[in-house]
Amino acid sequence: MKKIFGQIGRLKQEKIEEYKYLHKVAVHDEKWAGVLSTIHDCNMRNYSIFIEGDVVFGYFEYVGDDYEADMEKMAQDPVTQEWWKLTRPCFTKYSEASREAFYSDMENIFSFE
Amino acid sequence: MKKIFGQIGRLKQEKIEEYKYLHKVAVHDEKWAGVLSTIHDCNMRNYSIFIEGDVVFGYFEYVGDDYEADMEKMAQDPVTQEWWKLTRPCFTKYSEASREAFYSDMENIFSFE
Repeated sequence: MKKIFGQIGRLKQEKIEEYKYLHKVAVHDEKWAGVLSTIHDCNMRNYSIFIEGDVVFGYFEYVGDDYEADMEKMAQDPVTQEWWKLTRPCFTKYSEASREAFYSDMENIFSFE
Repeated sequence: MKKIFGQIGRLKQEKIEEYKYLHKVAVHDEKWAGVLSTIHDCNMRNYSIFIEGDVVFGYFEYVGDDYEADMEKMAQDPVTQEWWKLTRPCFTKYSEASREAFYSDMENIFSFE
């Protein structure tokens, strides 16, 4: 069954342009093809990222049947690990209450296909 | 051609629970069926809304060929107008730079089907 995810994060002011470049340009380089194929292999579909100021929003649909196992599989992929070395340092905590500086799940309050 | 939209808004603190109730419960009442059918008739698909604190995020895919005309068609629908009388007062401006208190388009920096 498809499960819909919305995730929010906050970028460091000085990293906003770098994060945009990485996702608008760099990720489509052949070097990072493994990042995209891993997203697909881990059963994520229709993945989009949006930005407004320093706030980033990620949307995707998960079509597998074991989300935790697929996220662990993604975390084990060497190319994805290299990608995260570039992208994760762009984040600061979304709010003081955030456990860590990265995307965190939002509550889905409405979906209509 | 499909165009992907991400929109961000901010709710008044005292209206957060009301906004959640309207979208998790009320909108599925028969009374508001016209809101959902109008969304479909105006060529919006896979519409989801997420919330984190007072920040709301909307995602949808537009599959028509005249977005402005379809948004005007939506604005002319009487049931949608009634719905907006309940939902729009829940918003405050997202930031001081925001032109008005409602959802505003974010920049799409990455999409991968």
